[in-house]
Amino acid sequence: MSAAAAARRLRGAPDLAITVLEQGPEVSYSACGIPYWVGDVVGDRDELIARTPREFAARDIEVRTGTRAEELDLDAGTVRTSTGETLGFDRLVVATGGRPLRPDVPGLDAPGVHGVHRLADGADIRGAVAAGARRAVVLGGGYIGLEMAEALQARGLGVTVVLADDLPMSLLDRDMGERICKAMGDMGIDVQPGQPVRAIETGADGAVRAVTTDAGSYPCDLVVLGLGMGPEVGLARAAGLRIGETGAVEVDRTQRSRSHEAVYAAGDCSQTFHRLTGEAVHVALGTHANKQGRVAGSVIGGQAARFAGVLGTALTRVGDLEIGRTGLCSGQAEAAGYDVRAETIEGTTRAGYFPGAAGITVKLVSDSGSGQLLGGQVVGGPGAGKRIDVLATAIWAGLTAEEFAGSDLSYAPPFSPVYDPVVVAARVASRVEQG
Amino acid sequence: MSAAAAARRLRGAPDLAITVLEQGPEVSYSACGIPYWVGDVVGDRDELIARTPREFAARDIEVRTGTRAEELDLDAGTVRTSTGETLGFDRLVVATGGRPLRPDVPGLDAPGVHGVHRLADGADIRGAVAAGARRAVVLGGGYIGLEMAEALQARGLGVTVVLADDLPMSLLDRDMGERICKAMGDMGIDVQPGQPVRAIETGADGAVRAVTTDAGSYPCDLVVLGLGMGPEVGLARAAGLRIGETGAVEVDRTQRSRSHEAVYAAGDCSQTFHRLTGEAVHVALGTHANKQGRVAGSVIGGQAARFAGVLGTALTRVGDLEIGRTGLCSGQAEAAGYDVRAETIEGTTRAGYFPGAAGITVKLVSDSGSGQLLGGQVVGGPGAGKRIDVLATAIWAGLTAEEFAGSDLSYAPPFSPVYDPVVVAARVASRVEQG
Repeated sequence: MSAAAAARRLRGAPDLAITVLEQGPEVSYSACGIPYWVGDVVGDRDELIARTPREFAARDIEVRTGTRAEELDLDAGTVRTSTGETLGFDRLVVATGGRPLRPDVPGLDAPGVHGVHRLADGADIRGAVAAGARRAVVLGGGYIGLEMAEALQARGLGVTVVLADDLPMSLLDRDMGERICKAMGDMGIDVQPGQPVRAIETGADGAVRAVTTDAGSYPCDLVVLGLGMGPEVGLARAAGLRIGETGAVEVDRTQRSRSHEAVYAAGDCSQTFHRLTGEAVHVALGTHANKQGRVAGSVIGGQAARFAGVLGTALTRVGDLEIGRTGLCSGQAEAAGYDVRAETIEGTTRAGYFPGAAGITVKLVSDSGSGQLLGGQVVGGPGAGKRIDVLATAIWAGLTAEEFAGSDLSYAPPFSPVYDPVVVAARVASRVEQG
Repeated sequence: MSAAAAARRLRGAPDLAITVLEQGPEVSYSACGIPYWVGDVVGDRDELIARTPREFAARDIEVRTGTRAEELDLDAGTVRTSTGETLGFDRLVVATGGRPLRPDVPGLDAPGVHGVHRLADGADIRGAVAAGARRAVVLGGGYIGLEMAEALQARGLGVTVVLADDLPMSLLDRDMGERICKAMGDMGIDVQPGQPVRAIETGADGAVRAVTTDAGSYPCDLVVLGLGMGPEVGLARAAGLRIGETGAVEVDRTQRSRSHEAVYAAGDCSQTFHRLTGEAVHVALGTHANKQGRVAGSVIGGQAARFAGVLGTALTRVGDLEIGRTGLCSGQAEAAGYDVRAETIEGTTRAGYFPGAAGITVKLVSDSGSGQLLGGQVVGGPGAGKRIDVLATAIWAGLTAEEFAGSDLSYAPPFSPVYDPVVVAARVASRVEQG
């Protein structure tokens, strides 16, 4: 929809006809809001819908919901749809999105196993809760896993989070992951780390009864997949579009397919690149999807545009603990060949004496030789999380720890100590540089 | 104290003796916390004291409180103190701070007129409230003025803010200042703009009775000076130190005096420079004072360091309205010769559907030709204010609106819309660039 809107802004309806095919019932909804709808923080499903097909129609963008693109013929320039039509195109944007990653274990197709992807998934999970589900197992400890664990606990279910890894939030360093793990335990969420799932056990009625690992069996009547999102590329692959090393559609910086000039791909189905390393990555996040769609639409509309890469910035919360990360964590930075320096500091979100001051831990990863900032991680109480944007901006701009340490950030007692914790971390990192 | 601590970190006590002369009873206290102490948000005066003389003594820094430096003899390398001693020095740091600006009007020396500077001022104002003061007039609508108006109102006083300017917060653009003015009015604070004070009227007992302007007379039993802080340079000027165009001690980027090699100056008594324009400015804020002290102490301790300039970043709140600014406002940018482009957007602090989402207005000032970001202003509900740090970092790094618009900021429904309002503002600014 971002691509359609961007193209329409640049070229009017007489000049460019735009048709959107969507297999589901909605376009432009907040998948990231589903955990909060499940948790009753957001009361009404319709609040998660940003724009309706009718609103797009008013801008001369034809949206066909309930219409699946079944097959692409890229040489002929046609799409065959589930409604039996064949539509021609001059330019095609593949925006088939992602799909929840599913472990290859018995029982995964049982009706009590849910991804967190479409609004219908949210409705199904809410239905299971309303029908009396009492125990849930969440597979995976990424953002969706954490958010769903909290949501289901808030609805009164007992929740176990089963992790294949040792710790939740694998894109944070170990010491930060440990804090998150502890906070989850303190909330009463049962975390079971280091246990790849082996089977979903079902009863005679086909309903989910337990999740089994090598270490134990966790009774439940609801299983939620929080293992991340992979690219949905079935349609693209079948049509012969080049698929990159990450399994997503390979595109250039204008989101144009590497294999077909008339075809663009954007969002969770497309491969992108890391801003710092240049490496091909697949990061399924709405922010990138929106921007990539806008780039594709702008280019199709005739205006130069290019996607500037990702740092992998992300933010979530579990209970009162806010968790942000950006850039490279220590392991990623080492793998990319940097001489890694990591510094962690403890501070407070407000002046220490100000009511509501909460603890905050900031970790900075930098390159030991140049001082260049490579990554940041923030874990702390209310007000901590959004500070990750300051680090993301510093890293985006290529600042060194020392350059950033000198920066002129705001101070007022209700908002931060005299030196904001992100600057304290940078100062420690730059002082280490200077010996 | 920052200078002393930095020098001590680099050079031990046998190598460098450090003596601090302080005329008042405390060092290292949070002047910015005084309004919150007056407002009973912070309960205990001692919470505002960051470090005591005893703590410095433990690090071999001798602090003499109640000891005023009366006279400097820079050629002889001596300081004469109020206790009748003459101390010698090899290096001197002048850190005499600022003083509340005072209009030259009758009655200003009445006992009911208070600056907001030292902890004793806070104690005096608290005393006046405890003694039954019922109406206060605050002169000036900068940070201190706003914070004191709110604090006194919270303590049950009727509060009038008398402004010489048309609007509060003169370092924000008009449209932003109008929002603040309205919020103050909505809180029940009486704002009287465009009225330089003409006199403080006192009764037969010498107590304050009213503040008079050309437009009216505002009864009160308490007057608070919120007109800003000027540099306190009496001692430096008498000693022959060169005073800059802003009225503060002129220093180079190592905080060394321009006129005397052995003398440094840091904090509110010293002149500094604007990061973007290079112009001499005087900005009395604790963040700069801390950093400048550290630079002076590092250089004296033998380590290279330099102050990197100020953007004038600042943050406050009045009621639920958070107010941040950084860099150049439109008027400053025009005066500096830029071809100014200013764009203002409205957004929400969280996803629009998420409980607690509040309105936020972001204004970006950029250079029309190059796209370089020059300034940012943020006004909005809880969670709005600290976003000014993201803009401050982008401006610090020299990003254009377009470069910043592509940046990878965090998104999660409890924390922001998919596009953070600061990025939306940058996108609008860069789209305007592109025509």
